Amino acid sequence: MTIAETLPAAGHAASTSVPILDVLTERWSPRSFEPDSEIAETTLTAALEAARWSPSAGNTQPWKFIVARRGTATFDLITANLMGFNQAWTPNASVLIVAIAEVIDEDGKPRRWAHYDLGQAMAHLSVQAHADGLHVHQMGGIEVEGLRKTFGLDERWDPVTVTALGTVAPADQLPDEAARAREVAPRTRKALTDIVAIND
Amino acid sequence: MTIAETLPAAGHAASTSVPILDVLTERWSPRSFEPDSEIAETTLTAALEAARWSPSAGNTQPWKFIVARRGTATFDLITANLMGFNQAWTPNASVLIVAIAEVIDEDGKPRRWAHYDLGQAMAHLSVQAHADGLHVHQMGGIEVEGLRKTFGLDERWDPVTVTALGTVAPADQLPDEAARAREVAPRTRKALTDIVAIND
Repeated sequence: MTIAETLPAAGHAASTSVPILDVLTERWSPRSFEPDSEIAETTLTAALEAARWSPSAGNTQPWKFIVARRGTATFDLITANLMGFNQAWTPNASVLIVAIAEVIDEDGKPRRWAHYDLGQAMAHLSVQAHADGLHVHQMGGIEVEGLRKTFGLDERWDPVTVTALGTVAPADQLPDEAARAREVAPRTRKALTDIVAIND
Repeated sequence: MTIAETLPAAGHAASTSVPILDVLTERWSPRSFEPDSEIAETTLTAALEAARWSPSAGNTQPWKFIVARRGTATFDLITANLMGFNQAWTPNASVLIVAIAEVIDEDGKPRRWAHYDLGQAMAHLSVQAHADGLHVHQMGGIEVEGLRKTFGLDERWDPVTVTALGTVAPADQLPDEAARAREVAPRTRKALTDIVAIND
């Protein structure tokens, strides 16, 4: 199965001024996932290995991941700590991952690049997962204090996102019209000239 | 030229428990770059397009990039704002990019995911650049206030890293023995079991 075959609708491919890797062009963040789809252990491990080998400031690797498959108690604990609008669609995801930044080191010193490095790790995970035919949707809409309490995380550890992984499903599986319209809307970005300040 | 052919020494490939994408396995952050190598405009644009199309919280795209080629005034201004240990090797890079997070939005509200999203954007840039045969080295050792002042960035904008892009060169081009030894040392990471807190 190619990545293209998993796309439920046109309009999701990134529109770029020069070609970039298919896995980056075709990556997007759906909300409609196949409710019965499971991720093979090897595929899930590959995604985590990709995160593991991403770069970080001084190779500090300031991250930790809580990984749960649909149907487990951990999956339900994570879901209970999502904002309501995310709880509506995440039950069909195959796996949820809490991405946690080590924002303070063992000596009590803040790690300035913890969030930045964690973002990189999740990007590497996402690239690997998409290359393996999965789709990935990262969520910022989470209950940070709830996740801390649920998983016993002290102030050194900051849950930053929860990421859903699964097999993308047609948009018409989504419960309401607004969600379906949002799912098939073309992806947009600022112009390159708006984000590149100087280029010489 | 394949990515493998650009590797100056063995020991840089990631050691993973299951296979992952070559571009992720073979990515690493050298300090020795070819001093005369230039990056084609299309290749540089592709890297920036990859960053542009990376995901962000609510598609806020909280980032800005200052991009400078070796030999330009901007390149020298960026170099002047690197910590000394980075100034030693960056002059051979083909391009330097200041990655800047929009940490406060237009209404004065903090953007919680600005660093995280910027890290993702630079990861996507890095994956694209490595796929195109370049190597990428991100640096946290930068003079944040100096960069702010130099490029007129107010408190809404936080320079988080400077990234060097170029063509990797043999380690023996580095000026001192410690740097050469560091360049060819095997890459290491924590065990997967140390970063995955729960997996069920």
